[in-house]
Amino acid sequence: METLSENRAFGGVQGVYSHASAETGTDMTFSVYVPPHSEGTKLPVLWYLSGLTCTHANVTDKGEYRAACAEHGVIFVAPDTSPRGDDVPDAEDEYDFGKGAGFYVDASEQPWAKHYRMRSYVEDDLPQLVADNFPADMQRQGISGHSMGGHGALTIGLRDPDRFKSISAFSPIVAPGQVPWGEKALGRYLGGDKHAWREYDAVALIEDGARHDHILVDQGTADDFYQEQLKTGLLALACKKAGIQAQIRMQEGYDHSYFFISTFMESHVKWHAERMG
Amino acid sequence: METLSENRAFGGVQGVYSHASAETGTDMTFSVYVPPHSEGTKLPVLWYLSGLTCTHANVTDKGEYRAACAEHGVIFVAPDTSPRGDDVPDAEDEYDFGKGAGFYVDASEQPWAKHYRMRSYVEDDLPQLVADNFPADMQRQGISGHSMGGHGALTIGLRDPDRFKSISAFSPIVAPGQVPWGEKALGRYLGGDKHAWREYDAVALIEDGARHDHILVDQGTADDFYQEQLKTGLLALACKKAGIQAQIRMQEGYDHSYFFISTFMESHVKWHAERMG
Repeated sequence: METLSENRAFGGVQGVYSHASAETGTDMTFSVYVPPHSEGTKLPVLWYLSGLTCTHANVTDKGEYRAACAEHGVIFVAPDTSPRGDDVPDAEDEYDFGKGAGFYVDASEQPWAKHYRMRSYVEDDLPQLVADNFPADMQRQGISGHSMGGHGALTIGLRDPDRFKSISAFSPIVAPGQVPWGEKALGRYLGGDKHAWREYDAVALIEDGARHDHILVDQGTADDFYQEQLKTGLLALACKKAGIQAQIRMQEGYDHSYFFISTFMESHVKWHAERMG
Repeated sequence: METLSENRAFGGVQGVYSHASAETGTDMTFSVYVPPHSEGTKLPVLWYLSGLTCTHANVTDKGEYRAACAEHGVIFVAPDTSPRGDDVPDAEDEYDFGKGAGFYVDASEQPWAKHYRMRSYVEDDLPQLVADNFPADMQRQGISGHSMGGHGALTIGLRDPDRFKSISAFSPIVAPGQVPWGEKALGRYLGGDKHAWREYDAVALIEDGARHDHILVDQGTADDFYQEQLKTGLLALACKKAGIQAQIRMQEGYDHSYFFISTFMESHVKWHAERMG
């Protein structure tokens, strides 16, 4: 692991690091905020998965999570959204596929399958690195994310509720199998058999039996992507049918931006901290 | 005034606007955060002047001021740091002079004098626009800034203590007449007569009789520019000699970045709010 930068912030350290990932076969950059803590203490870890076009840097610069993480003693980890580098195939001029748009899947189709392994990267590769290099208590993990990253948080969390004590999302894509962004990405990464998509679709996972006791979603009513791509109502309906007590909050007048995310970040961090213990 | 963007944030509105400035003779972009408030209420205004290479966007994205401004009912205005546009002379490849480096002076030397009027822009032009277009109580103003903008805040505030109830700065250039950044900029904008520089130098202003009862400065001890360019000690000494009770706080381990600024922003906003009333 290479340290790209470390800056003191809110009494802790905001770092940016890179490492060679065995899963993606590329160098990967990510950020970690470690709050002030006593020597030898292990702290709970909140994962934050970013949305289309983002890297670790968007939330690191604009997410306003450090004050809350310092107050509640939470490590905050922000991975990149896709493999990077000249060797990685990309879709030129498409912001919603290829680099910056890994959709947190392990691709099965060519030419994506070799490098586009963001599911395994986020579930296995990066957690091992974090456990080895930071004062992280891996028995206490929560996961959050925004938009495509909200999809990532919901699906990764729903597939492993024992590991992730709490799942939250800001304006998530809740049913990629039913919306244009998801149909395009899952179709090309995973192929045309829609059964293979269901483990990458929060609503389908719940329909297929996945359960979690601690789900929190914030969705802005002025979000331009709400009606066509995000469809929060499908998650609410799936949770209701399944008897899941999700907190799904519609936030009046808020859009899809980090102005929205930063407004509610403190309440998400506090909510996770209470559930991670 | 043209609205470039408005986003709901922390219950208020973060806007970015542009207007044709009579002072700079150019279009100027700036940001204003208006916190939640009752219809008809007028709110105090905190000015924030940015540092070298910055625009309004740096603090707007990374300053983490909105939570505190919403809590304390403060309007936060962030101007640009220089005139912009193809007609504006620039110093190619110099980050510390020309565009992005107006130093909050009214230039007297050519070719800078026509457009580089950032003192009058910040003191007169933009305040009039803000008073006309936002729910601002211009009887309650405070001023802050970072680095070159900390220099701007200190000098503008010290020249008009009746108008600015409170002055704060993050890692300011306190004595531009005695450091390389300032010698270069003031020498080229104002010419070689150093007497003309003194109204643009916080330490010189205090030596020449300027006084203010409410000055707050935060300076990181790990700031790479501290020893050569910022020289906080010269301000502490000038204040001591003048009997000014400035709060100058050295912050252990913090650098010159927005990770530092955002850490202490809440305490600055609160401190200004208490003094602006």
